Amino acid sequence: MHTTKATAFAPATIANVAVGFDILGFPVEGVGDTVSVERLDPSPGEPPRVLIESIDGCAAGCVGLPLDAGSNTAGIALLRLLRDEALSWGFRLRIRKGIPLSSGMGGSAASSVAALVAANALLPRPLPPERLLAYALLGEELASGSAHGDNAAPCIYGGLTLLRSVDPVELVRVPLPAGLAVALAHPHMELDTRTSRAALPSELPLKDYVAQSANLASFIASCYTADLDLMGRCLSDVLVEPRRAKLIPAFGTVKRAALKAGALGCSISGSGPSLFALCRSLEDARRAGAAMAAAWEAAGIELDLWASIVATKGARLVPEGLEAGL
Amino acid sequence: MHTTKATAFAPATIANVAVGFDILGFPVEGVGDTVSVERLDPSPGEPPRVLIESIDGCAAGCVGLPLDAGSNTAGIALLRLLRDEALSWGFRLRIRKGIPLSSGMGGSAASSVAALVAANALLPRPLPPERLLAYALLGEELASGSAHGDNAAPCIYGGLTLLRSVDPVELVRVPLPAGLAVALAHPHMELDTRTSRAALPSELPLKDYVAQSANLASFIASCYTADLDLMGRCLSDVLVEPRRAKLIPAFGTVKRAALKAGALGCSISGSGPSLFALCRSLEDARRAGAAMAAAWEAAGIELDLWASIVATKGARLVPEGLEAGL
Repeated sequence: MHTTKATAFAPATIANVAVGFDILGFPVEGVGDTVSVERLDPSPGEPPRVLIESIDGCAAGCVGLPLDAGSNTAGIALLRLLRDEALSWGFRLRIRKGIPLSSGMGGSAASSVAALVAANALLPRPLPPERLLAYALLGEELASGSAHGDNAAPCIYGGLTLLRSVDPVELVRVPLPAGLAVALAHPHMELDTRTSRAALPSELPLKDYVAQSANLASFIASCYTADLDLMGRCLSDVLVEPRRAKLIPAFGTVKRAALKAGALGCSISGSGPSLFALCRSLEDARRAGAAMAAAWEAAGIELDLWASIVATKGARLVPEGLEAGL
Repeated sequence: MHTTKATAFAPATIANVAVGFDILGFPVEGVGDTVSVERLDPSPGEPPRVLIESIDGCAAGCVGLPLDAGSNTAGIALLRLLRDEALSWGFRLRIRKGIPLSSGMGGSAASSVAALVAANALLPRPLPPERLLAYALLGEELASGSAHGDNAAPCIYGGLTLLRSVDPVELVRVPLPAGLAVALAHPHMELDTRTSRAALPSELPLKDYVAQSANLASFIASCYTADLDLMGRCLSDVLVEPRRAKLIPAFGTVKRAALKAGALGCSISGSGPSLFALCRSLEDARRAGAAMAAAWEAAGIELDLWASIVATKGARLVPEGLEAGL
């Protein structure tokens, strides 16, 4: 008898990374979504289905997250998996959100990836990660109106991922200098991905592209050469950040605080409102995080804060017995 | 007594490299400009000056290249050098163009760089390359209406250069896989840099930029990992090439011929009309070059063709006695 139940954890991810809009991302340790998936045999004469039994863990209640599988990012991914792999049975899901909603921390990708990794463990022949990524992108498409993969890819693979192509899926795993750490600060407000996307016009000046692409290319070079001084100079988003910063209260103050505290760079995590600060060490990340928190608190804004070594680990199965919270 | 005469050779350069518009470039062996510079003591009571004695070497006569130092890219660079370094004497120049005019092969940068490298040998304290680059950019600004440096930087430094910033000048030298070779084909027509720039609107779609930046970032990764298959997939310009291709007769036919002959990628050299094909080996580059030539000749267009290992050498002094041709 094959396993009929599995649980997986998928980390929060920081997409864009200042210079890689829609293509770069990496995971953060210590915060993520956990999904438990159980084999669901259909009633006689019924087709196999995906049932979302519960969604919990949200600080203010998981309002707005649909239990209907066809409207939920994790549900859609499993429905497609079920159909395309021609399974004779379905899935029952319990989703525990550790990632705040609409925070720019890759929450919808994480739920989808955790569901896929858990479901994959139930398959007679588990799928390779690139297939899981393709299914996760279908979930993402629902969440943001289009599939980008800059959250789903690092969430599955871990480390810094560069998505060269979405269709077909092709990614490059870029090495990150050892010891690199990140502070991630989430102000208590929601910013819908669609609103954040709407702040970007469909056309942008060529001169901004040139400046941004010079920083992107040099950032990639700095990853391979572990040149942190260069990395710091490159972490400057002239394309997207200036157009989205106004959606985030006290953005400039918080960013300046992080840089003054020694961060290599500070920018918007994904579509915001969370901000991240990339730092030379965990100690630096804690200092930058504290400075960011102080700046937001001075502006009357509450927040959550994480500091971690830049995670090399992506989503993984949670051993039996450790998922008691679900 | 210090040297009073020097001659330098500066190679042709391929700028943009399909995915690095205005930021990437590398030199080509076997074609370039040669400039001889002689110390010119001023007449009593006169300020030091820059005198361009001759410009020759152009296939169809060097029509349109100004002998007036203040209007010539090499002249302007030396005038600024003379002024900013507070020299008490000037320069007499003889320029031999090996690079066809308005060919997209970095001819104005090469003249300027060769003049600077030769003049630098006459200075009591020669300047470092980054200062020469800054002076070369002043010449380039005149030629194209703005300073890009994607020709001047590789022309001075050799190898693949990535210009992270023009002001202040900062570049990253990106390693290229050993053995990489290039075919460079120049159809017998001129394409003014300004005309080529005018084919680009000042604003471009964000989605094109995202696709281009994914290829650019992955191209840089492929240089560090020497992954030629990845490099080949990355050498696809969706941003600039489609908007400029119409300025180059038989563009599609010639490009397809290069790819069919085994080139990793084929695109416009600088602002065109020359095309380059990046290849795994010199043998491949010769084959791709022959295919490009056949395609253009079939369309009734004459051309020049070069094939070389991707040059790691930039501009250099020519030893006494070897510059007899000038």
